[in-house]
Amino acid sequence: MRPALFSSGLNRRVLLVSLATLPALSTTLFSASAPAQTAPDGLLPSWNDGAAKQAILDFVRATTDRSSPNYVSPEDRIATFDQDGTLWVEHPMYSQVVYCLERVPAVVAKRPELRNVEPFKTVLSGNRDAMAKLSMRDLEKILVATLTGISVEEFKTEAGKWLETAKHPRWNRPYTELVYQPMLEVLRYMRDNAYKTYIVTGGGQDFVRVYADKVYDIPPEQVVGTAGGTKYGYAKDGKPFLTKEPKLILNDNNAGKPEGIYLMIGRRPYAAFGNSTGDRQMLEYTGAGDGARLKMLVLHDDAAREYAYGPAEGLPDSKVGTFTQALYDEAKKDGWTVISMKNDWKRIFAFE
Amino acid sequence: MRPALFSSGLNRRVLLVSLATLPALSTTLFSASAPAQTAPDGLLPSWNDGAAKQAILDFVRATTDRSSPNYVSPEDRIATFDQDGTLWVEHPMYSQVVYCLERVPAVVAKRPELRNVEPFKTVLSGNRDAMAKLSMRDLEKILVATLTGISVEEFKTEAGKWLETAKHPRWNRPYTELVYQPMLEVLRYMRDNAYKTYIVTGGGQDFVRVYADKVYDIPPEQVVGTAGGTKYGYAKDGKPFLTKEPKLILNDNNAGKPEGIYLMIGRRPYAAFGNSTGDRQMLEYTGAGDGARLKMLVLHDDAAREYAYGPAEGLPDSKVGTFTQALYDEAKKDGWTVISMKNDWKRIFAFE
Repeated sequence: MRPALFSSGLNRRVLLVSLATLPALSTTLFSASAPAQTAPDGLLPSWNDGAAKQAILDFVRATTDRSSPNYVSPEDRIATFDQDGTLWVEHPMYSQVVYCLERVPAVVAKRPELRNVEPFKTVLSGNRDAMAKLSMRDLEKILVATLTGISVEEFKTEAGKWLETAKHPRWNRPYTELVYQPMLEVLRYMRDNAYKTYIVTGGGQDFVRVYADKVYDIPPEQVVGTAGGTKYGYAKDGKPFLTKEPKLILNDNNAGKPEGIYLMIGRRPYAAFGNSTGDRQMLEYTGAGDGARLKMLVLHDDAAREYAYGPAEGLPDSKVGTFTQALYDEAKKDGWTVISMKNDWKRIFAFE
Repeated sequence: MRPALFSSGLNRRVLLVSLATLPALSTTLFSASAPAQTAPDGLLPSWNDGAAKQAILDFVRATTDRSSPNYVSPEDRIATFDQDGTLWVEHPMYSQVVYCLERVPAVVAKRPELRNVEPFKTVLSGNRDAMAKLSMRDLEKILVATLTGISVEEFKTEAGKWLETAKHPRWNRPYTELVYQPMLEVLRYMRDNAYKTYIVTGGGQDFVRVYADKVYDIPPEQVVGTAGGTKYGYAKDGKPFLTKEPKLILNDNNAGKPEGIYLMIGRRPYAAFGNSTGDRQMLEYTGAGDGARLKMLVLHDDAAREYAYGPAEGLPDSKVGTFTQALYDEAKKDGWTVISMKNDWKRIFAFE
């Protein structure tokens, strides 16, 4: 689950509640590198044997064995994956929100008139209590100021630089290393079986496209996310360029996920992975197709190795990534498979 | 070039001027079949030797030969193709507009209150002089009534049925057979060289996706076009479905083409093919990238075998598909290659 780029998908509480847990806004000088994908000895080596692993293996067999009644032609094999909380860590705060907050000084340097204007003044102050009180409208102003009004190339360069230096406060590692090794194995396993793997994220499509190729081996055109418009224009030398506009085209969360899948992919997935209420409609839509369909939800129940939040087994309420009791009940009722990080994953990260 | 689905891209004159040349609105009972793609003996066998064929061969060699300074990694090879007038016949009227007009009786049968309401009354009358006088707003009403308010599955079924039976007035063949054999060879040649081929059309994305796989071997996710929104909802039995909404998300024509390419593909093409002013910005954007870039425009200068319209050699003004003198001049100035159907194409259609 991710909040959408602009107002309609943003949950202010979700964004701000963990601000206090972050270190001071700063970047480091160390470079990130993509996590190594170890060659699997056997299938899905980072998965413990159990219902979740078995569901994946059974589904792939059922849809790729020509003698199976649920056989799917290779060209129709589509699998969609939520990103935040499903492929990588989303706690304590979505990395894109951290990026936007950390971009504020650079934006103010270019537009000094914002220095003493809210909400920029508060963000520059570094006062987390004050930041936590910013209104929804203030947050929108920060997103618009930091993500739009620049060329698409400039955005890509800046976001890329940030990803190379920013580090997660808990592991002191680049965000791009905090991907779940078991899910990397699923992505590869699906692709090895001719599935075209897509990220379908509530996060910014442009942001995720910056690193999806390197981190997940997923090209830009297979990243569907919350997207703003661009505007075509010409530089002084006549060279055309695209500027990112503060206009929401696709709010790729909740019902926006199947709508975005239809817009960008044009057909129903056979497999979908998520971890929150923002993924509910994507899993419903996937499940409503004929034949075998795989619907899986990652449950964050491992405070020791990652985080614990959600409805099951008395876990604390979710702050970022809302796996509600209603979602849990729907999963059980409709035969979706819940992945327990604690029990189903032998290891969480490649660096462990 | 195609007019966009809704108002902003529609050129009323363009749509209506040729109404009188169409036969009565009717469908036939004969089935369509995809044109055969003959195996090439040599490269691009339906092309005459000349500058256009050579430009394609040179470009592919320059970008796929590892020793070339303009070598492009296979995963970066993107080629985009306009559809109407570039891959298939657009005269005397865009097939999607014919579809919408021919859908009116079925829509009125379901919504009888429209029978005596304009513009539906005029369309039902079959009076072409009256139809040619319909206002832009009337045309929009027809598009909205025939393309939206239905489930995406229903649209796909209805459009698919129409394509199987509707025939082009001049050749008395299904529209899906009126694809240009030389361009089918280019599509295949590009794919054989690891290029991912996309259609980037001003026409309706949903409409083109219905047949692109069968006709061009291009899957739905590689069709970018003018797109409306959808709305996720539930049927009485609880099954989710998507309804086509009268809300324009992407007007994929003119500047909307590079904007649509950025939204849907996320990177700049290395090759782009078009035939009209609606493709100008796509070719400019393609040409603004580094290294070798292929920019080609199909000129319809063959009245005997297809149609003749455009600026060159005293051709008549374009009615559908506007290849203006300004576009011709820009092509010459910026080193784009103009394809003469008359001189560069050995044959036009597979059935010849």
